[in-house]
Amino acid sequence: MINFEFYNPARIIFGKDTESQAGKQISKFGKRVLLHYGGGSVKANGVYDKVVKSLKEEGLFFVELSGVVPNPRLSLVREGIELCKKNNLDFVLAVGGGSVIDSAKAIAAGVRYSGDVWELYMDNSKLAGLTEALPVGVVLTIPAAGSESSTASVITNEEGWLKRAINTEVVIPKFAVLNPESSYTLPAYQTACGASDIFAHLMERYFTQEPNVDFTDRLIEANMRTILNNAPLALKNPNDYNVRAEIMWAGAVAHNNLLNTGRIGDWGSHDIEHEISGAYDIAHGAGLSIVFPAWMKYVYKQNVDKFIQFAMRVFNVDFSFDDKEKIVFEMIERLEAWYVRMGLPIRLSDVNIGSERIREMADKCMVGRTHVGNFQKLKADDIYEIYKLAL
Amino acid sequence: MINFEFYNPARIIFGKDTESQAGKQISKFGKRVLLHYGGGSVKANGVYDKVVKSLKEEGLFFVELSGVVPNPRLSLVREGIELCKKNNLDFVLAVGGGSVIDSAKAIAAGVRYSGDVWELYMDNSKLAGLTEALPVGVVLTIPAAGSESSTASVITNEEGWLKRAINTEVVIPKFAVLNPESSYTLPAYQTACGASDIFAHLMERYFTQEPNVDFTDRLIEANMRTILNNAPLALKNPNDYNVRAEIMWAGAVAHNNLLNTGRIGDWGSHDIEHEISGAYDIAHGAGLSIVFPAWMKYVYKQNVDKFIQFAMRVFNVDFSFDDKEKIVFEMIERLEAWYVRMGLPIRLSDVNIGSERIREMADKCMVGRTHVGNFQKLKADDIYEIYKLAL
Repeated sequence: MINFEFYNPARIIFGKDTESQAGKQISKFGKRVLLHYGGGSVKANGVYDKVVKSLKEEGLFFVELSGVVPNPRLSLVREGIELCKKNNLDFVLAVGGGSVIDSAKAIAAGVRYSGDVWELYMDNSKLAGLTEALPVGVVLTIPAAGSESSTASVITNEEGWLKRAINTEVVIPKFAVLNPESSYTLPAYQTACGASDIFAHLMERYFTQEPNVDFTDRLIEANMRTILNNAPLALKNPNDYNVRAEIMWAGAVAHNNLLNTGRIGDWGSHDIEHEISGAYDIAHGAGLSIVFPAWMKYVYKQNVDKFIQFAMRVFNVDFSFDDKEKIVFEMIERLEAWYVRMGLPIRLSDVNIGSERIREMADKCMVGRTHVGNFQKLKADDIYEIYKLAL
Repeated sequence: MINFEFYNPARIIFGKDTESQAGKQISKFGKRVLLHYGGGSVKANGVYDKVVKSLKEEGLFFVELSGVVPNPRLSLVREGIELCKKNNLDFVLAVGGGSVIDSAKAIAAGVRYSGDVWELYMDNSKLAGLTEALPVGVVLTIPAAGSESSTASVITNEEGWLKRAINTEVVIPKFAVLNPESSYTLPAYQTACGASDIFAHLMERYFTQEPNVDFTDRLIEANMRTILNNAPLALKNPNDYNVRAEIMWAGAVAHNNLLNTGRIGDWGSHDIEHEISGAYDIAHGAGLSIVFPAWMKYVYKQNVDKFIQFAMRVFNVDFSFDDKEKIVFEMIERLEAWYVRMGLPIRLSDVNIGSERIREMADKCMVGRTHVGNFQKLKADDIYEIYKLAL
């Protein structure tokens, strides 16, 4: 276990009808709000109306900025920064899923950063110059990205379609309202992709080469079992509060950095996936269900025993230790079966992607980087092999 | 799962040599420090010297108040409050275990409370009048109470030897330095009592009647297994960093309220134990290893299946479901065996306590209360029966 610092001051307000508390929470920090969201879904499911009512009840001034899309764009972030400056706004409220929250964090950081906001994403060393951001609040509608209480924001620059991230305490939301009911209306595929994203966050943390991290291993396993059990049930019964609640809370804890303590996560599969969803129009969660089995097949030999532990404790594989590879590959088949049960792709061919651009994607993944991943430090040729395994 | 709010802004600074960061952390909040500790142990193990060095390096003014004893006393709390007021102190640093931290929290609250600090403990409704406390920091030396990042403080009033608690956000420490090395020198019995206390915090949260809390159940089970596995090893190899680290981090997470979310814990056994360690001079952790098996035997029928889940998932009891009671009692025997392996008592007779005062203790436990516990709401007669089962 390595030395660590853990700090997460996000206030989680969880449960039915909790949107009504948004206005009161904001009042602790500001009076002039940028209300940031995507498009129709928060209006269709009633969340938008509840939030606006809560803002009005507290007498808060607000300006709206909608139009966030998956893989949130730098251009909208820049627009939000201008809007905040012009209207002297002092709080950013994100209503939606990870894309909206990531966009809100970028705006909040950009308003307070002396340089151009994209610098922070391209060169993380510049985060040292970001000592504060506008306070951010969240009303979550999609359990997936975990951005509601994380230090992270991922933004896509349309010029060159580069997708890059920041991680900094100053963008941790001040509060996050989590009402599982707001996820009832998610399309089945989006529910499945969300579960895949959460499970990926857990695997990225789990597969570390750091020894003596059994407590956090077990916490991650607990979270994994929750997602494995509940996600398929949410597809069967979209309005089951208890199932949606388990997923929503587990999804937040998966990414709030508690499960990272004392260890260095991998995150290679995320980087490898970002190139797929950058080059083709597929959901992040669907890209992850394609990348992970391939990544596992490529890297497991770096620490077979970690994979055996995972296979036994999370997937109940209790084969004899006479053949350790058999245990690993049985686990991969069970993981793939879980993805397939939820209607997710497990090969590039499942989403009609061929080998045409995989060399280009592998090279692009290395732009500005010396390697991706930590379990095994991967170079362009390794990534290319992983894409081949995923065909 | 019930609606909940979760907020824990304590910054955890974990690992080797982390005491040196205390001064810098304090500087974010204050300049004039009450340095609060127990007695010789922090001087003997070198922690006191490291902390004082760190305070001096930051140029912080400090006044010392030592002499905290287990079951920390109201009289010393009052002394601390006077000292803070007289010297215009603006920060309280606790160096030690749960007793020192609880005493520091009481002082920090008392300095800012307009009435008498004991009122807050005797009538928790008065906490509404406590809107702030002095900031508190912690350098932890004993993993046990979990007070280092909790909302709780338990104080004993020597007049009548009443032991009462507060729970409020305003006393959550601003930071907690956790260096597992500082627990190397703990006597074996104290290490065992600490593990018993942590395991008790987990059981108090686990045994809820609230259904559909499987995610938090699993997180608790993960923590329980960590304590079950590592505590006996810490007794064998007191200087094993990895073992001490697992216990120290698990002990903090056990009590930071994450594992409480969406559920109502029991806490009856804690109240029942407080009367034992109040009336007799035994350690809290030893009282808990006596009370829990008896409590389980008395209440398990209120929700046998919760006990079955616990027996299977935490103690690997995989007996046939034909006889559920057999599973429960096998689990209790395994729990007792774990206590015994660590040298802890499991009956009152093990610590030479007879039946003489159990009626008096059962009645006293009800002072100012309508019941204790939530899994089964216990009255004086129930508590008396539990004491009898523990004889």
